[in-house]
Amino acid sequence: MPVLRNNVELTQVIEWESGISRRVEDYLAAEEPLEIRIGRRPLTVTMRTPGHDRELAAGFLWTEGIVDQREQIIALHHNEAEAGARGNVVEVELEQGAFEPDEVQRNFFAASSCGICGKASIESIRNRGLRAPNPEFRVDPEVLCALPDRLRAAQEAFGRTGGLHAAGLFNAAGELLVIREDIGRHNAVDKVAGWALLSGLLPLSEHVLMVSGRGGFEIVQKALAAGVPVVASVSAPSSLAVRLARELNLTLIGFLRGSRFVVYAGQERCVPNAARA
Amino acid sequence: MPVLRNNVELTQVIEWESGISRRVEDYLAAEEPLEIRIGRRPLTVTMRTPGHDRELAAGFLWTEGIVDQREQIIALHHNEAEAGARGNVVEVELEQGAFEPDEVQRNFFAASSCGICGKASIESIRNRGLRAPNPEFRVDPEVLCALPDRLRAAQEAFGRTGGLHAAGLFNAAGELLVIREDIGRHNAVDKVAGWALLSGLLPLSEHVLMVSGRGGFEIVQKALAAGVPVVASVSAPSSLAVRLARELNLTLIGFLRGSRFVVYAGQERCVPNAARA
Repeated sequence: MPVLRNNVELTQVIEWESGISRRVEDYLAAEEPLEIRIGRRPLTVTMRTPGHDRELAAGFLWTEGIVDQREQIIALHHNEAEAGARGNVVEVELEQGAFEPDEVQRNFFAASSCGICGKASIESIRNRGLRAPNPEFRVDPEVLCALPDRLRAAQEAFGRTGGLHAAGLFNAAGELLVIREDIGRHNAVDKVAGWALLSGLLPLSEHVLMVSGRGGFEIVQKALAAGVPVVASVSAPSSLAVRLARELNLTLIGFLRGSRFVVYAGQERCVPNAARA
Repeated sequence: MPVLRNNVELTQVIEWESGISRRVEDYLAAEEPLEIRIGRRPLTVTMRTPGHDRELAAGFLWTEGIVDQREQIIALHHNEAEAGARGNVVEVELEQGAFEPDEVQRNFFAASSCGICGKASIESIRNRGLRAPNPEFRVDPEVLCALPDRLRAAQEAFGRTGGLHAAGLFNAAGELLVIREDIGRHNAVDKVAGWALLSGLLPLSEHVLMVSGRGGFEIVQKALAAGVPVVASVSAPSSLAVRLARELNLTLIGFLRGSRFVVYAGQERCVPNAARA
């Protein structure tokens, strides 16, 4: 299939409507695996939409707690040399001692040995040293209500494929700073976090993160890692996302549509006329 | 938060609408981690909606290629004894020699050593021995068009939380055989596959799998593992899902809404009046 842009492919399909079928062209959201390596050692493989891969890798390392300082990442590059890799490998060079290869697995076993439950999942977030985001940040409800339209307008590919999630970073005035799309919701958030990390903007303590899909545990966890005080989505959060947001006092907004939304945690940050106060 | 049913929790939230905020009760889709163990050894942790956990574990083992015969699973039970586990651990007892602990990792390295790309992902599916599903199966387009409403009607929790994905298994006449919900799309599919495995119904060679979300690579892969000839979704498939469906000749339907849908692969299985022929 011809690749039009990085993240869209064009293909022939059959459209069936009310008994009539015809051959048409259609756009598809691109999906390819990305392998992230520490040096030459594979760390993870994620199915993602190609584009902003270095940001995705940097964001993943940060939001999963593998690095906690910008300086630990010495270099970050696509491995173009490898036969067949097609740009689907990003190699990260870390500062000496920044990452013990078995650390991830050890943490996993440490968490599971005391029984695995939502409480343990939240504890493991605490144990990573993640703290409540900026308690002083305020956002105007009217500003929040404007975000979904701005995110949609910025989603180039969305209208064509319907298959991409978006994550957008806004300031308190509701201005869009960056938008990233991906077939995986968590990848879109990692791309935004990686953009912020590589731009020297972390923690994002004066920002709102808006995601196009559902607000699950993983999204709240990644937002906390990036220091974001407000996470908004057009859909429903999960029970564990709400519990995590309440425990670490992150403002979690769901069902943000038209002039209505639901506040699941951290309501004190939603203040009318906040930006003008 | 009080747990109403297995998969829904009730909580207090703030609803904001046109400048007025009020405290209301809201339902949340439950999300908890599930650890799947082979004996006492952790295999994976997935964030899932509690309920049908044994099916989820069985389906995961099957669709990920860890078992390929029903008899390899000797026992499958919740570990209720472990302190703090809260039903979030399923232990699987496998037939002697059915699974080499390092196999998954070895396969991963085998795939990545030749370069990682969509082609390699598809190759790894072929290498698992997955074949084209039943070439004789036919389904009437009118039957397909009726599936989304039937799936939605069966989604008990959907109207209340808006946060759960569904996977439904239908026969050629469009009758719903089973529906499973989960906060993770792939988990909903694994629960259906696990139900079929434990019911002795695999391969599902006369069936249509309908998913409420997007049709990605993972969904098509799991459908192929279960032998399903037709996968339908209300939304867009990814490029890699389409390539995999075309290579292994699975019928892939997207944007199934009202009296319209798009056929991305395997159009020969969509035949008017197929059920009556």
